[in-house]
Amino acid sequence: MATYSCRSREELRMEFKRMIARYEDLKHENLNLDMSRGKPSKLQLDLVSDMLTILTDPEECIIDGKDARNYGDLAGLQCAREYWADILDCKPEQTFIGGNASLHMMYNIIARAFTHGLKESPQPWCREGRIKFLCPSPGYDRHFRITETFGFEMITVPMTPYGPDMDIVEELVADPLVKGIWCIPKYSNPQGYTYSDETVQRFANLKPAAPDFLIMWDNAYCIHEFDGVYEPFPDIISLCEQAGRPNMVYEFASTSKITFPGSGISVMASSVENIEYMTKLFGVQTISYDKINQLRHVKYLKNKEHTIEVMKKHAEIMAPKFEMVLKILRKQVTNKGIAHWHHPKGGYFVCVAAMPGTARRTLELCKRAGVTLTEAGATYPYGVDPHDSMIRIAPSYPAIEDLEKAMHVFCTCLKIAALEKYLGMTLEQVTEL
Amino acid sequence: MATYSCRSREELRMEFKRMIARYEDLKHENLNLDMSRGKPSKLQLDLVSDMLTILTDPEECIIDGKDARNYGDLAGLQCAREYWADILDCKPEQTFIGGNASLHMMYNIIARAFTHGLKESPQPWCREGRIKFLCPSPGYDRHFRITETFGFEMITVPMTPYGPDMDIVEELVADPLVKGIWCIPKYSNPQGYTYSDETVQRFANLKPAAPDFLIMWDNAYCIHEFDGVYEPFPDIISLCEQAGRPNMVYEFASTSKITFPGSGISVMASSVENIEYMTKLFGVQTISYDKINQLRHVKYLKNKEHTIEVMKKHAEIMAPKFEMVLKILRKQVTNKGIAHWHHPKGGYFVCVAAMPGTARRTLELCKRAGVTLTEAGATYPYGVDPHDSMIRIAPSYPAIEDLEKAMHVFCTCLKIAALEKYLGMTLEQVTEL
Repeated sequence: MATYSCRSREELRMEFKRMIARYEDLKHENLNLDMSRGKPSKLQLDLVSDMLTILTDPEECIIDGKDARNYGDLAGLQCAREYWADILDCKPEQTFIGGNASLHMMYNIIARAFTHGLKESPQPWCREGRIKFLCPSPGYDRHFRITETFGFEMITVPMTPYGPDMDIVEELVADPLVKGIWCIPKYSNPQGYTYSDETVQRFANLKPAAPDFLIMWDNAYCIHEFDGVYEPFPDIISLCEQAGRPNMVYEFASTSKITFPGSGISVMASSVENIEYMTKLFGVQTISYDKINQLRHVKYLKNKEHTIEVMKKHAEIMAPKFEMVLKILRKQVTNKGIAHWHHPKGGYFVCVAAMPGTARRTLELCKRAGVTLTEAGATYPYGVDPHDSMIRIAPSYPAIEDLEKAMHVFCTCLKIAALEKYLGMTLEQVTEL
Repeated sequence: MATYSCRSREELRMEFKRMIARYEDLKHENLNLDMSRGKPSKLQLDLVSDMLTILTDPEECIIDGKDARNYGDLAGLQCAREYWADILDCKPEQTFIGGNASLHMMYNIIARAFTHGLKESPQPWCREGRIKFLCPSPGYDRHFRITETFGFEMITVPMTPYGPDMDIVEELVADPLVKGIWCIPKYSNPQGYTYSDETVQRFANLKPAAPDFLIMWDNAYCIHEFDGVYEPFPDIISLCEQAGRPNMVYEFASTSKITFPGSGISVMASSVENIEYMTKLFGVQTISYDKINQLRHVKYLKNKEHTIEVMKKHAEIMAPKFEMVLKILRKQVTNKGIAHWHHPKGGYFVCVAAMPGTARRTLELCKRAGVTLTEAGATYPYGVDPHDSMIRIAPSYPAIEDLEKAMHVFCTCLKIAALEKYLGMTLEQVTEL
C-alpha cells in the first residue's frame, strides 16, 4: 500500500471510513490499559522476589565489624560501593550509594547546586540571575521537571541516533549561563538510542564556559539489554578525568528495573573529589541510607556477571512485548508515511515519531478507547513538543494479550489522526454525518 | 561531703590529688568507648530482627489491588499511613510516609521552604534577605546544622523543664524575619524534658508575624518511654487547626529507634492542605519511597498498642543503662555543686549541666582516657555553648559494664575540670610537679 501522501482523496476517505469502523469496534471492547510509564510487570517482580528471603539471619548484617542495621556509613556499605563500581566500571571510592530512587539523588544534586553550589561553583546557583540547562529531546519528563521546578531556562537540543547533536551542544556550552545537560547515554528514554563512542568522547572533551558545568549522566539502562548480549559502554568518569575536567560529571543508576522499582538501591558516581564534597553536603540531610537493603542487593545480585544473568531473565519477559509492539507497528503503519520509529535493543520504551501535528490527537483518541499512553509533549521541556509528533510507548507493564489490543488501538488512532489532517475533517464530523 | 564551693583550698587540693590519681588509673585501662550518639545497641537490634523474615511471600506484597513492589503511592501505602496516624493521634490523610530517615524529611521541608516556599509563603525563602530561626537549646545538633547550612540566623531560646521558654518565643515571633522553630516535644534531646500541656497549647496559639512561620515538631521519641508506662501526648496538628493556623506545623517521627536505625520508615504529618502541597513538591524529587519496607513495618509493628509492647522490650535494655548513668552521677557528683541533671523517663540522653566553663575541658579529659562523648557545644546553634556547660551522654550503645567504666571516667573528669577552676591550676601543672 502506498503512503497516504500518494493516495487520492477518495482512497484516503475510504481508509478513513475503514479506520473509523475499526475504532468503533475497538471502543466497544471497553479496554482499560496503561502504557504510560516504564513500569516492570508483575512477572518481572515475581522473578526477583527471592530477594525477600535473601537476608534473614541478623548475624549476616554484621560485615567488616560493622552492623548494617545501625546508623552510619553515609556513602554506603563498602560491598555495595564495590558492587556498583563493578557495574559502572569505576572505582568504589567514586560511588555513593543512595536510597530507593536515583531520581531523588539527581534532584539532590540539582538542589544542592541551587542552594549551595557544586564543587567548582563560584556561588550557589540561586544567586545567579539566570541558569540555562540543556535538554536533549525527546527526553525524560521527570528530568525536565526537576530543572523546571528550580526555574532554569531549558533549551532543547535535538537527539540523533548517536546521542544529542554534539555540534549544537558544543556551541551552546560557550554561553556561561549554560550550566548543565541531561543525558541518558544508553538506551535513551524514550528513543532507545545509545550514544556513540564519539559522542561520549565529545562530552568528556567539552570545554564549557561555566566552570561548574554539570553533566547529569543518567545511566538508567546501563545493563538493560532485552535484545542481544550486554553491550559494554565507556566510563564517562575516567574520560572526563583524562580530559582534565574530572568534576564535570555525575553519573546515576539504580536497581529499580533490576530488582524492585520502589524498593531498590541507587548510586551516584563521580570523581573522588565530587563524592567527598557531596558526602559532606548529604551528611546534613541524613545519617545514612538503608544499608540492610544494600546488603540484600549485594547478596542477591552478587556482581556484574550475575546481574547480567538476572537481566537476561527480565529480557525473556520484555523481548516478546517489544517484538509485539514493533510487529504491529510494522504491519499496520509502515509505508504509510505517517510515522517512523527506532528498533531499540534495550531500555523501556519505543518512541514513535508521528506525522507532525498528530501526536496529541492520537493520544486523545487512544484515551477515549481506554488506552493511556505517556502524555503528549511529555518528552520535551515544559511538556511542549514543538512538532506535536513524539509518542512514547511503554510496553513493559501490560500482559502481552493486552499489549496486542492496545497496539491495535494505537495504530488505528495514529492513522485516524493522520487521515484527519489529510482530509481536513475530524472523526466527529464524519460520524455525525 | 560538702559542695566544693564550701571546702577549704587544702581540702580541694587533696580532692584534686585523689581525682588525678584515679584518672591516671582509669587511663591505664586503655578504654575505647563511644557515648557520643543515640545509637541503639546490638541487643536492641537483635530484639527486632524478626523483621528480616516478616515479609517473605511475594503475594503478600499485593494489598488493596496494588503491588507494593512496584512504583507508585508517593505518600505511602494506606496501611502505613493508618499505622502512623494511630501512633501520632492524627488522621491518615494528614501523613506522608518517607524513607529511612525523618531527618531527611525535615531537611526536605526546610530546603523546599528555601527553594520553593511553604504553602503560606509569599515567596521562596531564598528570596528573603534574612531568615531567623528559633533554636531551643540545648537541642539537637543535626537540627541546627540544617538551618545553619541554609544560612539562617539561629536564635537560641532557653529550655525549661516544661519546654522552650514560651514568653521568649511569643516575643520573638513578633519579628516577621523569624520564620520557624525547632521542637522535640517529648523527651527532648538532650535533656529529656517533655513539653507541658500549656507549652503545647501556647505553641498552637502562636500568632507569628511571618505568615509562613513553621513549627518543626520532631516527635522523635513519641513512644520511647524507658521508665514507666506510655504517656499520651497532645496532637499538635489538631490544636493548630483549632487555633486557626492549621498549616503552621509539620510533625516528624520514625521507626529508627523502634526497629532498625538505618532501615526504618519515617513519617511527616501536617494539615491535609500542607500534605497535598508537599506531596506535589516531593513528586518532582521521587516517584515513591520504599513501600516493601513500609509493609514490613506495618506487619511487624501492627499498631500503636503492639508497638508500645515492642518499646517495653527496648526499655528493658535501656532502663538499666540509664539507671547506671544516674546512679554513678548521684553517687559521685551529687552535692558537690559542680553539676546538675534531669532524670528522664524516655528518649535517648542524659544531659549534665556542668559548672560553667568546664564542659569542654571535661570532654577533653574523657577523650584522653578513651571515652568519647558528644562534642562540647554541639547542643547549641553554631556548636557554641555560651556557658560551656552542657554535656550530652548517650548511654544506649555501650554494654552496661563498659558504660559503668565510662561513667567513672566521666565523673572523675567532671570533678577534675571543676577543681582546676577552683584551684586555678591544671592537671598538667600538678602532674608535672
